Amino acid sequence: MSQPTGACPHAWRHQQQHRGRMWATSRAFRRQLVLLRSLLPSPPTPPPYSFPSVAGRFFAPSCSSPSSTPSGSIRASHAMAGSAVYEADAEAVVRRITPPLDRSRHKGQAGKIAVIGGCREYTGAPYFAAISALKVGADLSHVFCTKDAATVIKSYSPELIVHPILEESYSVRDDERASVSSKILTEVAKWLERFDCIVVGPGLGRDSFLLDCVSNIMKHARQANIPTVVDGDGLFLITNNLGLVEGNPFAILTPNVYEYKRLVQKVLNCDVNEETAAEQLTLLCQKIGGVTIMRKGKADVISDGKTVTQVSTFGSPRRCGGQGDILSGSVAVFTSWARHFIMSNEEPKEKSFVLMQCRVNPMTLGCIAGSLLLRKAASLAFEKSKRSTVTTDIIEFLGKSLEDICPAEH
Amino acid sequence: MSQPTGACPHAWRHQQQHRGRMWATSRAFRRQLVLLRSLLPSPPTPPPYSFPSVAGRFFAPSCSSPSSTPSGSIRASHAMAGSAVYEADAEAVVRRITPPLDRSRHKGQAGKIAVIGGCREYTGAPYFAAISALKVGADLSHVFCTKDAATVIKSYSPELIVHPILEESYSVRDDERASVSSKILTEVAKWLERFDCIVVGPGLGRDSFLLDCVSNIMKHARQANIPTVVDGDGLFLITNNLGLVEGNPFAILTPNVYEYKRLVQKVLNCDVNEETAAEQLTLLCQKIGGVTIMRKGKADVISDGKTVTQVSTFGSPRRCGGQGDILSGSVAVFTSWARHFIMSNEEPKEKSFVLMQCRVNPMTLGCIAGSLLLRKAASLAFEKSKRSTVTTDIIEFLGKSLEDICPAEH
Repeated sequence: MSQPTGACPHAWRHQQQHRGRMWATSRAFRRQLVLLRSLLPSPPTPPPYSFPSVAGRFFAPSCSSPSSTPSGSIRASHAMAGSAVYEADAEAVVRRITPPLDRSRHKGQAGKIAVIGGCREYTGAPYFAAISALKVGADLSHVFCTKDAATVIKSYSPELIVHPILEESYSVRDDERASVSSKILTEVAKWLERFDCIVVGPGLGRDSFLLDCVSNIMKHARQANIPTVVDGDGLFLITNNLGLVEGNPFAILTPNVYEYKRLVQKVLNCDVNEETAAEQLTLLCQKIGGVTIMRKGKADVISDGKTVTQVSTFGSPRRCGGQGDILSGSVAVFTSWARHFIMSNEEPKEKSFVLMQCRVNPMTLGCIAGSLLLRKAASLAFEKSKRSTVTTDIIEFLGKSLEDICPAEH
Repeated sequence: MSQPTGACPHAWRHQQQHRGRMWATSRAFRRQLVLLRSLLPSPPTPPPYSFPSVAGRFFAPSCSSPSSTPSGSIRASHAMAGSAVYEADAEAVVRRITPPLDRSRHKGQAGKIAVIGGCREYTGAPYFAAISALKVGADLSHVFCTKDAATVIKSYSPELIVHPILEESYSVRDDERASVSSKILTEVAKWLERFDCIVVGPGLGRDSFLLDCVSNIMKHARQANIPTVVDGDGLFLITNNLGLVEGNPFAILTPNVYEYKRLVQKVLNCDVNEETAAEQLTLLCQKIGGVTIMRKGKADVISDGKTVTQVSTFGSPRRCGGQGDILSGSVAVFTSWARHFIMSNEEPKEKSFVLMQCRVNPMTLGCIAGSLLLRKAASLAFEKSKRSTVTTDIIEFLGKSLEDICPAEH
């Protein structure tokens, strides 16, 4: 991916529009349309390339779209290139990617998730992420954390498998660092390939030795093509070491307003510009190279550098800490399901992951579904507990929220 | 028991059929019929040797039975040799073996169970097994685990008695191993004979020193004729050291699909063959020598090398981790109850355990009852919590499930 010389210049925008036109006439775009159509409950027969009328089942133009675009490949491709934001039909996404509950399935087939996080200081965040994964419907949820954190996280719930593997600087002598770091990687690597998705960051803290170890784990996960949701202190880590996610189509970043600001400053060397927010987000994804970013806020805006979609269903006015952790755990499960859904609904010859960027992006679908579910659950929890709503209350409504959208009858 | 020269050969099958015919005319078979009859709520007077019409109260031919067998000792004995699978009348089994609640009883008389498991990594599994034993109706439930695990397991529930006795390699110096191992056995042995049944394996992990210590505990339990349910990492242990269960009629193995596959490969030196599944399971029990195996799956199929029965009541499509632990704890309680029921309903001269293999096998009854109860509880939990059902939700329904089958009024 060639880099623009400055942040958001006009030249870059024109170049992007040209690329958008190229994209709209490409085989990859056609394939994406076919796949979008395959996701629809009852396939319509839209005119070719009329992006909104097809993708509109998932992505309806939102208020922040610069103009309504009834049809036309150029406007559509322009939208694909990042200047229009489509409101996702998030309920349809949830319904389509959530796997049916099949009596013949074995333990693990509905998803195995791991959270890398939890240190001497933080234990709630990794617990929230990991238990949310189970409550959304994963079969197994692991946490890899420090010894200090492990006892506490285990005691929150017997449902989680908690590995007291990580170490912080205070517990490791300087001359032991290399060997301890290598041992940690070996221990985690034994498990990594079993997971459908990992979440890096909840309650990770900022200890330099711990972050070095987690960098190694992220590199290993990337080599194994394991989707990786990066949140919280994981975003601090990758903002200072972009190489960890650069060019990784399996990486999902979920920054909040502050984390997004730091990311934009670091990567685009400018401040967040709300007037060109969608373009800036697209550009950010492209400059990091193929990652998916969900910018959390009043609406959660999601881009993979090609499409920009948002989920703006109202959740709750309570802003208690921990909701981001629910989101990261939920996105991990939905991303696994979306990958499985897409893999099992396409031609065998297209199963290679190198085509990922030419297809409907399961990372985007995972973000859309996770965002909606959190918002629904937060809304129900607020209705019940009002100002005293805490994260645990919201987690208790994940099941009902999913059931309301996508009943588990089988 | 003579060993077949290869896995599942025709010669072996014919030999088994011959043995089946011998068995059908034997005193032992007659004794088994008498005992099956004694388990019936209102004893009928069936024609002698018509196995299905008698055992049909507990074991109705299932869909996987090769053919319906209205009567006839040969078909029946053939079934006994393993080629037909009878659906257990599991509700009748639960009703008959569950002891009445008698005001004159003392603490401990409804069952004392111990779980050997729980290490630095796993704490949920032994907790699930031990708390399930209590929720089914045992009076006392102990856990023997490592020091690291003990604090956490204690924190899950004040109901359990948790012994921080086991050690893992990392906490024992090489020169201390023999003395630590001996001390551990002495500590556990003090308690062992008080238990009606032990469960070996939930959350045991795979540390070599720990597994060596647990091998010693298993040998001791065997000498004391204590029924032993082997699950999870306990199955890993015995698959690599079959001597621990060989020829032990008090051993119950509860493998899932992967554990069963490894066991078949190790013992029969072949792959799992679904077409001859019942015969293969029978053969596996026979080759290990007298153990009872419950092969978990869509239906739980149970054999002690003579009969093959199954429980296929539908439970839940959720496959969250931990359900196997509920099952192992429940089977432990029901096996204790079944043993007590049989011992108190037969002629005094038959009370010797050496006749165990000639009688209705309490291990089989324990498996049938445990399987049904888990399935009922999982079904109720799923009805309530749908996709967000976790193991704790299922445990909460063990009591209601048992009450529905077998009300505690007295």
